[in-house]
Amino acid sequence: MTINDLDTPALVIDLDVMERNLARVADYAASANLRLRPHTKTHKSPALARRQLELGAAGISVAKTGEAEVMLSAEPKDLLVAYPIVGAQKIERLVRVAGKTSVTLALDSLAAAEPLGRAAEAGDVRFNVLVEVDIGLGRVGVQPKDAPDLAQAIRKIPGLDWRGIAFYPGHIKDGNDARLAELSQTVAGLVHDFRAAGLEPEIVSGGSTPLLFRSHDVAGLNEIRPGTYIFNDLNTIASGACALEDCAASVLATVVSTAIPGQMIIDGGSKTFSSDRLSSGEGGFGRLMEAPGAFFHRMMEEHGFVDLTKAERRFTVGDRVRVIPNHICVAVNLHEVCYGIRGGEVETCWKVEARGRLQ
Amino acid sequence: MTINDLDTPALVIDLDVMERNLARVADYAASANLRLRPHTKTHKSPALARRQLELGAAGISVAKTGEAEVMLSAEPKDLLVAYPIVGAQKIERLVRVAGKTSVTLALDSLAAAEPLGRAAEAGDVRFNVLVEVDIGLGRVGVQPKDAPDLAQAIRKIPGLDWRGIAFYPGHIKDGNDARLAELSQTVAGLVHDFRAAGLEPEIVSGGSTPLLFRSHDVAGLNEIRPGTYIFNDLNTIASGACALEDCAASVLATVVSTAIPGQMIIDGGSKTFSSDRLSSGEGGFGRLMEAPGAFFHRMMEEHGFVDLTKAERRFTVGDRVRVIPNHICVAVNLHEVCYGIRGGEVETCWKVEARGRLQ
Repeated sequence: MTINDLDTPALVIDLDVMERNLARVADYAASANLRLRPHTKTHKSPALARRQLELGAAGISVAKTGEAEVMLSAEPKDLLVAYPIVGAQKIERLVRVAGKTSVTLALDSLAAAEPLGRAAEAGDVRFNVLVEVDIGLGRVGVQPKDAPDLAQAIRKIPGLDWRGIAFYPGHIKDGNDARLAELSQTVAGLVHDFRAAGLEPEIVSGGSTPLLFRSHDVAGLNEIRPGTYIFNDLNTIASGACALEDCAASVLATVVSTAIPGQMIIDGGSKTFSSDRLSSGEGGFGRLMEAPGAFFHRMMEEHGFVDLTKAERRFTVGDRVRVIPNHICVAVNLHEVCYGIRGGEVETCWKVEARGRLQ
Repeated sequence: MTINDLDTPALVIDLDVMERNLARVADYAASANLRLRPHTKTHKSPALARRQLELGAAGISVAKTGEAEVMLSAEPKDLLVAYPIVGAQKIERLVRVAGKTSVTLALDSLAAAEPLGRAAEAGDVRFNVLVEVDIGLGRVGVQPKDAPDLAQAIRKIPGLDWRGIAFYPGHIKDGNDARLAELSQTVAGLVHDFRAAGLEPEIVSGGSTPLLFRSHDVAGLNEIRPGTYIFNDLNTIASGACALEDCAASVLATVVSTAIPGQMIIDGGSKTFSSDRLSSGEGGFGRLMEAPGAFFHRMMEEHGFVDLTKAERRFTVGDRVRVIPNHICVAVNLHEVCYGIRGGEVETCWKVEARGRLQ
């Protein structure tokens, strides 16, 4: 079966590029002496998590309880839920997950920690806990100065084992050396403050795809949790962390209308690509690989509007194009299946098993 | 079971509001002597399509072949695929659908029409065809002056029965009387041109939710295809076609972090709401029903950032809020299940069966 036999829109993964991306980051992490704990929210597929573990990942990360349940089948040695888990139903499910593998939680409040500790006790399991610290993104996490106190309080909760610190530097892009230096200083200060309080953070977990290859410049960091690097996307290119040839994922689409002069409509819109804009603020919803100069400037739910006035080639109804999305993590979540291609051949396909696991 | 027993994030539908929305539009269509053919891309659920048919809908609309297949179980008398169907696999599947119910297609090219005609002949079925006309949106559709010629050409294709005209006035909002008058003139001119060419368009199909209750002002229009009206959303309010109390759908979410002063994080972001902006261009990703003054200003994949600096109440971790999305059609497509509530009781739930049917 070749790529031409696939119906569209279809999410296709270039397996050679994906393997190269996986190997590059595994090698980097090993050489920088960093534990690699890939975030599986990007691919949502246990088969790919298993591949990441085979290449040396120390564990995996998930955001949702439902993702944790699905990822059990990848048999991770440790599973980090990098999201504050709140609510009795999720806690009960996490206790069951912790009965099957080691579970680590990143938490920023006692309000979240206490019921988790009680449930662990009652369920005869233990949760490892990292204290989530806000290092400038302003999303979740206690302020650095408050972090040792939260760790002290968590240490007193039966059922929980405090293990270290987690943070997410999503606001810092590769190339911004001043902010990177600031981050390094903040993290070093954090570790210092923990030690001054008599706490030794065994795990200092941070890292994102944009900052990935600068992780060794963050003093004290010993674990990274990149997600997007397995596929990459236009945002990763814009952040400077990869080149166009490192984008493994694209959406195969068909031209369904050329009725409006200077424009074509492809058979995917916001329900296929997501409506995520480029983080740079630039316009456009994806890059058409076969159409230099074409501009994918607008979307409706199932319609992609491509301006062809500056395109180097003409298109007719039925033509196919491959489009690299702005943000692959949200795009993957819209697809039931990924097709793995090598050359023009469809070598494999897999279900996006944790797709839509919102809870 | 009450709404408090639902895990979050969860898509909840207020059944009283939904029924009122359905009845209002069914009554309007009947009184204005318009055939109602609801677009099911909003709810993607055969159970709700069945309800629309019970209330007098003449048929239903879908965008995708996969949606057509799913909607067969609602037993529509006629199923309009309001999207140019291109590609051998989709055509083959549509022939099978046409073996089970009457199928109408909206097309804007012979390139799309001819293979459909050949397949219908070979499969011993027939397709009704509407000529899709661009009445100013600039998405799909031939120019009005070219529409009669396309209809003439389609009439010569065995397997296809030309039945009329389709268009989508998605660029015109309620209240813009000048553009509405222009639309009415364009449609009247179209019908005139068809008749002058010896063609009687039995179906003149247009209409959207924003323009819904002005459909009787479009001369010659005899069929409307609104989708969003069953639930409504912030965009519908902004378009003037509904009020806040007509929004039937909301996302139930939990506060998972209040660590950053003046802000809370809820457990849904772009994978729960979609990242669709308001069509007005205003900021914000949803309206929190229980938090006047709160501003849901930013999203990451699983994090909703709510600015509380102007909110009238305080929140703590574990609190729950209901959020009306900007655009309900893309939000529904991210959920596996909808919960139907009446008062505080969860009365029913249903699977979003055509969710993710991209092909």
